[in-house]
Parts: sequence; C-alpha cells; structure tokens
Amino acid sequence: MKLVIGNKRYSSWSLRGWLAAKQSRLAFDEIVIPMDTPAFTAAKADASLMPSGKVPVLWDGDTAVWESLAIIEWLADRTGRDRFWPKDDAARGLARAIAAEMHAGFVDLRRHCPMNTGRTYPSFALTPEVERDIGRIDALWREALHGFGGEGGPFLFGAFGAADIMYAPVVTRFRTYDVPLSETAEVYVNAVLAHPFMQEWYAGAEAEDWRLDRIEF
Amino acid sequence: MKLVIGNKRYSSWSLRGWLAAKQSRLAFDEIVIPMDTPAFTAAKADASLMPSGKVPVLWDGDTAVWESLAIIEWLADRTGRDRFWPKDDAARGLARAIAAEMHAGFVDLRRHCPMNTGRTYPSFALTPEVERDIGRIDALWREALHGFGGEGGPFLFGAFGAADIMYAPVVTRFRTYDVPLSETAEVYVNAVLAHPFMQEWYAGAEAEDWRLDRIEF
Repeated sequence: MKLVIGNKRYSSWSLRGWLAAKQSRLAFDEIVIPMDTPAFTAAKADASLMPSGKVPVLWDGDTAVWESLAIIEWLADRTGRDRFWPKDDAARGLARAIAAEMHAGFVDLRRHCPMNTGRTYPSFALTPEVERDIGRIDALWREALHGFGGEGGPFLFGAFGAADIMYAPVVTRFRTYDVPLSETAEVYVNAVLAHPFMQEWYAGAEAEDWRLDRIEF
Repeated sequence: MKLVIGNKRYSSWSLRGWLAAKQSRLAFDEIVIPMDTPAFTAAKADASLMPSGKVPVLWDGDTAVWESLAIIEWLADRTGRDRFWPKDDAARGLARAIAAEMHAGFVDLRRHCPMNTGRTYPSFALTPEVERDIGRIDALWREALHGFGGEGGPFLFGAFGAADIMYAPVVTRFRTYDVPLSETAEVYVNAVLAHPFMQEWYAGAEAEDWRLDRIEF
C-alpha cells in the first residue's frame, strides 16, 4: 500500500489517514507532498496520485480510497472490524456516530484553530462558536470515556481505534491553542499525545522544512 | 427500531437515514418533526429524541445512532455488509470514498440548492462554485456507473446501496433545479427517482402540510 499525505505539521486529514494505516499494521509507503507548494498543485491534478484532488489517499494496489473515514472502513474490511471499532454494540453505535460527526462537523473549530503541531499559543482567544464546538467534543468524549459499564479509557472506547483516529487532530489543536477542557478530556488528550503513533507523527512533523511554516498569529 | 427525521420535503439528511432504514428491511417507526417549528426546537434539546440536536437519529433499543453514514454502517453490521456495499473490492473502495466525500462535501451545492421535493425551477441560475460541485458529482457517478468490468447501472454499483443512499438528496436537487447533466447521469437520476423507496418518500412529502413551505425563489 502507499499513502499520499500533506505535511505532517499542518495536514489534519492526513494525520487521520496515516493513523488508520498504522493501526492496520499493514506495510505502507508514505508519499508526503507539502501543501501550498507547486508540487502539491501538480499532484492535485494527477489522478494517479490524488483522484479527489485532496489528501489523504490510500492506494491499495490499483484501488484508490480517499476520505479518512472511507480509509478506516477499507482497512477495517482488510484487517477485521475489531481493530478499529468496539465489539460492544452500544459502544460501536456511539463510536460510529461521533466519528461521522467529526468527519462532517466542527467547522468553526477547524477554521479558527488550524492544526500546527509545531506551535503553542497560550490563552488563545476563542470565539463563542469555537467554544460551542469544544463543549460538544468534550461532552462526546466524556460519554465515550465513561466506559459502557466497564472501566473507561485510556482511549475513547478502551483500546485505540477509529474514533480516536478521527479526533486525533482535534487533540493536537486543543494542545496548540491551550484550550481549557474537563479533567476527563484533559487526561484523554495526554493519553493520545503519548501514543507511539502520535509521537512518531510529531517527530516527523518536527523534521519537516520549517520554511514551509505558513500559519502564524 | 425508530427513526427521528425532519419533514420529507426539506430534510435531505433525513432522506438518507430513512433510505438506509428501508434498505435494511428491518421494521422501524418514523417520528417526523417538521423543521423550523417550536416542536423541532424542543426536540433538539431532548436527548431522548435527538442526542446530537440533529436529524436523522436511529434508535435501536437504547442505542442512538446519528449521522447518516454511521446509520448506514450500523445497519450494515446488523444485516450484512453486502446489502449496502459492493462485494467487489475495487467497487467497494470507490463506493466508500464517494459516500464519505458526499458526507463532508459539496457545501456550495447544498447551500445554494436546498432540497425541496415539491418544487421545480426551470433554468435555475447556478454559480461557478455550484457548477464545480455538479461537475465533480457527475464525474464520480460516471466512474461508478462504468461497471467495473461488468455491465454498469442501473444504480451506482449495480444494485441499490449505500452510495445511492448518500447521493439521493442530490438526485432530487438536480431535478428541482433543472441541472444539466451528462446522459449517463441523467439516466441514473431517472432510475433513482423511479425506485420504490423514493416514490414512497415523495408521496410522504406531498402529504405534508404545505403551509410549512419555507423555501422560495
């Protein structure tokens, strides 16, 4: 398999596709194309790289799968659903719902607080719309982390899975923009940032060319 | 099961959830709450109806599943994946990708051409952004309908399934706003509108209180 992604420092959707590929335990090659560069513009027009003009794209043989949620389901089909989704029905229902809600939602947070793994902005000013998104995410996390009758955490549904993958870029934003959270959510943020996959992504982001840094406040 | 939806005339997301429930062949009760009414405002705040404050919501026992794509996957788990997704790997990869692209995308089309099953606007003026969305959708449909080595159609991947469900509200918009399409896409639009589930939805929309009509050009 090969995975086409944008720079690790900025591309939140790429992070989701990459985490899904790591979670599958299948071997894959990374093709990193820095965004906002002529190379990225050329790649967008190249259907053999980005059939949708967007990252991430997973190529599995001749089959291209784009959109992070579709990549997750594709890999769940390949490796077994349990690697990505909870076994328990009620937990899986919530996991599927909040993953899809992330896929299409939280637009204000995404626009106002773009991912930038290389920066922190203490006491960053949040708009009421962004605070509403944050409050909703914190509540969804607490509902997932309550444990469905068992012991909850460290990840949303116990073991690391699809819901964590979908929210991972939000975790980085909450840290970057110094977002106040509930205690439960704060513990979860720390768990995600300490996950070996996230450590590897951050190290990769750190190694990228800093001249490409385009987001400043 | 029970399904909480908005009015059939306007609620494009509800149509997706409802088609998924019909496609499952499982029995379900419909709870229709007209949008932009005090009843809808009250229901949004009632977590026993709409835990996400949005329609559709599928209640399967005590488990609430919201977001149409999550409802599809929930029902695919219950009834078998093949009822919703193509068996062929390459076809399923494309089906998953274009369903997810619809779930999060085509914002200009959705904003500019809201669903209204009760109206047609001949020669409706489209903006360049909307035309770009339409061109992309037409191309995706043609790619799906080419048949993956077999005979394509009448639906995106042969039999009616998840990808058709996700694009069904777009089909109604293309008809409502008199959108020019490729011949292949036009044939597909007719096939979807002739499907018994769509006929049933349109009849239900027709029977709704017309005083609730809120979209006029």
